[in-house]
Amino acid sequence: MILEKIDSPQDVKSLNDDELATLASEIRQQLLTTVSQNGGHLAANLCVVELTLALHRIFDLPKDKIIFDVGHQSYVHKLLTGRRSRFDTLRRFGGISGFPKRSESEYDAFGVGHSSTSISAAAGIAAANLLSGSDAYTVAVVGDGAFTGGMIYEALNNCADKEKLIIVLNDNDMSISPNVGGMSKYFSIVRSSAKYFRVKNGVKRFFEHIPLVGNGLIKCTRRLKNSFKRIAMSQNFFEQFGLSYYGPLNGNDEKHLERVLAEAKDDGKCSVVHICTTKGKGYKYAEERPDLFHGVSGFDIETGRIKEGGESFSNRFGALMCERAEKNEKLVAITAAMPDGTGLKEFSQRFPSRFFDVGIAEEHALTFACGLATEGMVPVFAVYSTFVQRAFDQLIHDAALQDLHIIVALDRAGLVANDGATHHGIFDTAFVSEIPNVTFHSPVSFASLEKSLDEAIAGSGVHVIRYPKSGDISLDGFMSVDGFVCRDIGASPQSAVVTYGRLTETAVSAAGKLGDSVRIISLTKLNPIDFSVLAKLLSGINNIVFAEEGIKNGGVGQRICATLAESQFLQGKRVHILAIDGIFPEHGSNKELLESLSLTDDDIARALSEGIR
Amino acid sequence: MILEKIDSPQDVKSLNDDELATLASEIRQQLLTTVSQNGGHLAANLCVVELTLALHRIFDLPKDKIIFDVGHQSYVHKLLTGRRSRFDTLRRFGGISGFPKRSESEYDAFGVGHSSTSISAAAGIAAANLLSGSDAYTVAVVGDGAFTGGMIYEALNNCADKEKLIIVLNDNDMSISPNVGGMSKYFSIVRSSAKYFRVKNGVKRFFEHIPLVGNGLIKCTRRLKNSFKRIAMSQNFFEQFGLSYYGPLNGNDEKHLERVLAEAKDDGKCSVVHICTTKGKGYKYAEERPDLFHGVSGFDIETGRIKEGGESFSNRFGALMCERAEKNEKLVAITAAMPDGTGLKEFSQRFPSRFFDVGIAEEHALTFACGLATEGMVPVFAVYSTFVQRAFDQLIHDAALQDLHIIVALDRAGLVANDGATHHGIFDTAFVSEIPNVTFHSPVSFASLEKSLDEAIAGSGVHVIRYPKSGDISLDGFMSVDGFVCRDIGASPQSAVVTYGRLTETAVSAAGKLGDSVRIISLTKLNPIDFSVLAKLLSGINNIVFAEEGIKNGGVGQRICATLAESQFLQGKRVHILAIDGIFPEHGSNKELLESLSLTDDDIARALSEGIR
Repeated sequence: MILEKIDSPQDVKSLNDDELATLASEIRQQLLTTVSQNGGHLAANLCVVELTLALHRIFDLPKDKIIFDVGHQSYVHKLLTGRRSRFDTLRRFGGISGFPKRSESEYDAFGVGHSSTSISAAAGIAAANLLSGSDAYTVAVVGDGAFTGGMIYEALNNCADKEKLIIVLNDNDMSISPNVGGMSKYFSIVRSSAKYFRVKNGVKRFFEHIPLVGNGLIKCTRRLKNSFKRIAMSQNFFEQFGLSYYGPLNGNDEKHLERVLAEAKDDGKCSVVHICTTKGKGYKYAEERPDLFHGVSGFDIETGRIKEGGESFSNRFGALMCERAEKNEKLVAITAAMPDGTGLKEFSQRFPSRFFDVGIAEEHALTFACGLATEGMVPVFAVYSTFVQRAFDQLIHDAALQDLHIIVALDRAGLVANDGATHHGIFDTAFVSEIPNVTFHSPVSFASLEKSLDEAIAGSGVHVIRYPKSGDISLDGFMSVDGFVCRDIGASPQSAVVTYGRLTETAVSAAGKLGDSVRIISLTKLNPIDFSVLAKLLSGINNIVFAEEGIKNGGVGQRICATLAESQFLQGKRVHILAIDGIFPEHGSNKELLESLSLTDDDIARALSEGIR
Repeated sequence: MILEKIDSPQDVKSLNDDELATLASEIRQQLLTTVSQNGGHLAANLCVVELTLALHRIFDLPKDKIIFDVGHQSYVHKLLTGRRSRFDTLRRFGGISGFPKRSESEYDAFGVGHSSTSISAAAGIAAANLLSGSDAYTVAVVGDGAFTGGMIYEALNNCADKEKLIIVLNDNDMSISPNVGGMSKYFSIVRSSAKYFRVKNGVKRFFEHIPLVGNGLIKCTRRLKNSFKRIAMSQNFFEQFGLSYYGPLNGNDEKHLERVLAEAKDDGKCSVVHICTTKGKGYKYAEERPDLFHGVSGFDIETGRIKEGGESFSNRFGALMCERAEKNEKLVAITAAMPDGTGLKEFSQRFPSRFFDVGIAEEHALTFACGLATEGMVPVFAVYSTFVQRAFDQLIHDAALQDLHIIVALDRAGLVANDGATHHGIFDTAFVSEIPNVTFHSPVSFASLEKSLDEAIAGSGVHVIRYPKSGDISLDGFMSVDGFVCRDIGASPQSAVVTYGRLTETAVSAAGKLGDSVRIISLTKLNPIDFSVLAKLLSGINNIVFAEEGIKNGGVGQRICATLAESQFLQGKRVHILAIDGIFPEHGSNKELLESLSLTDDDIARALSEGIR
């Protein structure tokens, strides 16, 4: 096996053509083996095998830097940079991250996970190199999907004066789902008419050989020449930003890639190398359905059968949206390139004119929703908690400040297990709560999701509804009070756990372990909180433990605690806040993560018992 | 006076050419009169007088909607839509806002203040119109400066399928300062070669008239024809997004504007009308120095002399940056189109290679800084508090998660007086505090700013330094403790005000009014807070008033209060948090705003005395 002998990019440089082809095949096999077991991103990695090899051969790592946009496609790079032997720990607790990570390897030049950051980071590195006089190269590898994100343009607009900066546009006509928008159509025209660029160069050369003398036909030719020259000088999209352009070329042809990358390297300025690849390349099931094999929890290699999760909040949300849309023609749905992940696939098929996939463009999505709302539509923007951070300003400035009636459905709220540090939805509880005019729901169960969504649709102003990447929770024994669900375990409890979301189950389990009476108070509305109701629920309680699967600073626990302190309610009572305290949780199962964060039932039980003592 | 007779767009439609010219001149006079007194945005409004008139004549307001990007250029629109008689209250407390505002007029279709949102909002309105079958038009008026912001591209990418949507690119080669980047150069090429577009159309027509028969020269012509046709079909920037393009045309020629806008209206799809205007048009001082007359506090009309503010934190920061950069060659500075506002003008002149103006592109700016930091530079991104909301995700995901050493200098933290609701920097105290790995400074005085900046430069990880749009504060009588400054007014105080920033002065004044002993504890570091030091400072105190010029939910007061409650420190003590509680403050002087928010010295004194009773 050749792969076993590759410990650094230097080893890839010494391979001959046959060995390279064998290596490519071995890498694809390794990708299938590991991702089928551990889950992760498959299709994007299969398509960049040749590209990664070519980059490792043409550039001088780690002196030269490669930055993978989003990082879905970094597994090949990881395999080739000393992480092969640990590759079976991919996405597992304590193991290799599913994304590039500076602390993991000197070959990971920049940590990523959210889309469209790579050119900005690469421009920063290139700028630093210019200042320090370094002759190192910086390469950003960007999928065409990332080109729907505005940061890419902000960065392109600042690249013309950089040097030794190469942007590889990896164009497979797919981001996560099929790509959307005007730019995608433009790329597709460019792909299908590779001749365009050859012709343009041909025209330039042709006219350079016509002498500008004589009269008659020649005079006419001169006039034509001047007109046509101006046209022939017309620029493609990237040239308009002042960048050199190479391509499009076959991105699964390793030798061709090497030649063009070497040319771009010689150029020495900032250039764009446009390559066309096949997403899922080399694995027929992934080639056929690259959307399904974008990110998977695991699959059977032989049959291509993908492991299905059980029913999730996302599914339930999607089903509810369809039901409500049948009755309410003002209801429209928006996604930022996540029709599957957010459960909106069925909605998109049943109500195509009321469904908007805007690309990986959360900022636009939010303000677009605001525009829809001004005309009386009821827009629901479904987005992962971690990605709505991109639309924070728009949520404040366009939605809440104008008190517009929009709904933001925050999927993947809380820990997201194996995707890890870049993807946990642990900040929203704090940053959404600080925005005026926002009603902030945290449904515990599917039934409670339905209630929140209906309240949001019927209501006014901004509604944010957060729910986790997991399934229903049983609320047996809980009674529902406006904004809360509540349950006493044991008689006349003097201790209470105040929590929300899926830690509600953990709190019940903690109470069971403690063997003492405990009241569980779970918030279904995080803001505004009805403190008169909460005070009633807390009457007779003198030991309060707040438990939250969210950041501690500025979080729900601190807010409630401070508000209770202001009204003198805490006099003679003990309070304790269990939350994520000033750290970024890593990747692993949620169980492992909660243990590492001291947020298990044991931890809650311990906090309860400390109060009792 | 014609202007006095204009109460709605209908009145503008009935004017003849001479009356229109007179009206334009009267509007310019009114703009000069009001802005010279009240301050505000002058140059951008002077340049859109003809555009606004043409829009009001061609479109049918308020059924058709006009959305002004950023809104700097909306004064003419306000004058023409029933707000003329109140125009002298512009930017004053209770008066007309300096930005479009839905609650102010049915003619203000969408509230703005931050850049680059207009096309997203307009696309939402156009989408709603398509769904509801309305035949209304939507017009977004966008300056070329806003085209440096990524949202514009996210939106353009989603416009091709919209109808009756017109994007007016108001190109004056200036955003706030001279425009930057590759796209700006592209616009300038387009501007200077208006012929390009005529030639392209000419070529198309020329080839349409050559018959495709014969041989010899004609055969050659055919080959040429096919090649050239393809080239002649090559698309300009906007056409690449699938949009129609009109222009460039003289945007100060009202009749010409009307003709082209009518044409774009007839088109019925989504089109871009590219107009070139002169920023500051009609007032020679503003034409000469459009940057100085972008936003002013007031000026003398005759001499063009602009009211100068006193020394500010911005100036002091800029001077410190120059001093430190002399000694530390790794120090670099970044601005998002605000070299003047952030005080970095001198730095940009003295250290041009270490200064980066990236355009109105806060997301890129932050991640670009991160890229620089990975190579050992010490980047300082100076940005207004309200605008860093745009880079919230990048601050979390690119900077803090990777623990990179960057410095964010947050100017205009707290209330920003007359700019109003869209511009107050009142959310950062909460959202910056929730991010792990961030050291968050809040210097009270110029001396304390210097200390914070030096600590940030010498330190590691992310440092955020917030300071207001105002001048130095005297700390006479205060003693400095790590992370705090502290002063006792009167002997053995049992009450304390815990605050930060410029409310420190208000707290001192409150103590004076109360006539009782008070300890003033002002935080110079908002996170992490050394609670062991704070506990010592609070020993013997049984009445604590938190006062903050920031949002209450998730803010510093709540965080401290909750942390003290957790450690049982508040038992037997009273606490009271004065902060901005769930509302967006409007515009006015800071004094008026603080009164409306119950954050004056009287309010603090009252809270202190309530505790005592």
